[in-house]
Amino acid sequence: MTSTSRLPIGIFDSGVGGLTVVRQIHRLMPHEDVLYLGDTARVPYGTKSPTTVIRFACEDTRFLERQKIKAVVVACNTASAWSLPTLEHHFSLPIYGVVVPGAEEAVRKTRQGRIGIIGTAATIRSQAYVKAIHALKPDAQVFVQSCPLLVPLVEEGWLHHAITVAALKEYLAPLLRKKIDVLILGCTHYPLLKPAIRRLIGPGIRLVDSAETCARYVQRQLVLQALAAPGNQRGRIQPFVTDEAEHFDKLARRFLRSPTERAWQVDLASF
Amino acid sequence: MTSTSRLPIGIFDSGVGGLTVVRQIHRLMPHEDVLYLGDTARVPYGTKSPTTVIRFACEDTRFLERQKIKAVVVACNTASAWSLPTLEHHFSLPIYGVVVPGAEEAVRKTRQGRIGIIGTAATIRSQAYVKAIHALKPDAQVFVQSCPLLVPLVEEGWLHHAITVAALKEYLAPLLRKKIDVLILGCTHYPLLKPAIRRLIGPGIRLVDSAETCARYVQRQLVLQALAAPGNQRGRIQPFVTDEAEHFDKLARRFLRSPTERAWQVDLASF
Repeated sequence: MTSTSRLPIGIFDSGVGGLTVVRQIHRLMPHEDVLYLGDTARVPYGTKSPTTVIRFACEDTRFLERQKIKAVVVACNTASAWSLPTLEHHFSLPIYGVVVPGAEEAVRKTRQGRIGIIGTAATIRSQAYVKAIHALKPDAQVFVQSCPLLVPLVEEGWLHHAITVAALKEYLAPLLRKKIDVLILGCTHYPLLKPAIRRLIGPGIRLVDSAETCARYVQRQLVLQALAAPGNQRGRIQPFVTDEAEHFDKLARRFLRSPTERAWQVDLASF
Repeated sequence: MTSTSRLPIGIFDSGVGGLTVVRQIHRLMPHEDVLYLGDTARVPYGTKSPTTVIRFACEDTRFLERQKIKAVVVACNTASAWSLPTLEHHFSLPIYGVVVPGAEEAVRKTRQGRIGIIGTAATIRSQAYVKAIHALKPDAQVFVQSCPLLVPLVEEGWLHHAITVAALKEYLAPLLRKKIDVLILGCTHYPLLKPAIRRLIGPGIRLVDSAETCARYVQRQLVLQALAAPGNQRGRIQPFVTDEAEHFDKLARRFLRSPTERAWQVDLASF
């Protein structure tokens, strides 16, 4: 154990979605302090181009680095998919994404080697999951589907609404026709749709929740690198946002299901 | 007529939606040159807070001002709703928004004085349309409905999709129960949904397309201020974007239905 291990984990996302990752991390490692940055002024990332996503991810990481942290978790699937090599090149902190842990879990869970992935347009376009799966299991058959409407539907709070079910049906039908046996929820918003997705796909297909798998991966890595926090005191979650804090505090409850410190608004341009 | 009249009109929007305004301006005033700025890296504005929308609108206007233009059109309903007083205070150019022209047209068109407005969450929250209507017709009954899913549905290209019709039904039902006789399409994306909306509301309710009314307003103002462009040469439309130009060029065709110059990517931080 090092003195660094007492520092918080820095986690960033395009907005509130990454709180599903924070939730899982806090469940597994309740004594870790967490600094969370949600880039709510520029959300979403999933509709933007790779160069823009990479630029935003660098600015987010630079902000967190200045706060004295021990590691960075890129909770946003789109940012993980595009920016991880650039971040690893420019920053000396350990940096963990959501894509590799999700791909590993999918490969562990599949029986027939037929894996489906849903995500934002930018995540799907990156092919990051496809490449990560093929690196582990070259004969896997991978089928992808971008689902641009799911994030707005979740943010509208329509988790069980008929319109959400209709959109899910439309997005999932091509994957079901391919007889997938594992489905990766490749966006931090999608865990909130798990009950609706489960009802549509039936009990036979295994789900990979990239928030859950990322949290387990971060736990393993922190232990391996002697960075896990000592002690038993309950850790604090301090959110920072780039848009108004008030709106975030309201949405945060839906994603996190537990209280955080009040969010602070920050200006990334000054970092 | 002044030499200033030969300068282009600067138009900005959060993304591609404002091209519906460009289209109407170009239809009415085909010899005007237009510089269009779409803040595609930070789109949408309609889900963001007032302070953030005002900051973005100031940055957009500053960029256009540096390009030598004769007037600024705030094509984005959300930016018009929140930032017009601030922009008028900080910039010496004539600045035209979409809200006042839309409110004027609604007041002209209503018979029973029962006006409905649909828009983004931020536009509706601003009450800008309600205040503009009441300033002209204090006894008008105004009913508002925020429609967060319509922008993503239009950008997905689902203009006639069953899911879009279902969302429209859900959003419009409360307004129809109020027996409105005019409906303001208070977002630049909504003109693309006009056929679907018309089928749902029937022939009795008059529609106000804020892109059309804004274009007529800009034409009147330019003539009044001796700023209308001379000559008959067909004007050029030069788009600038803050995210990748390529994706914009594709979407632009759907909104504009005529060719533009190829978009240039710009960095607002350097202005």
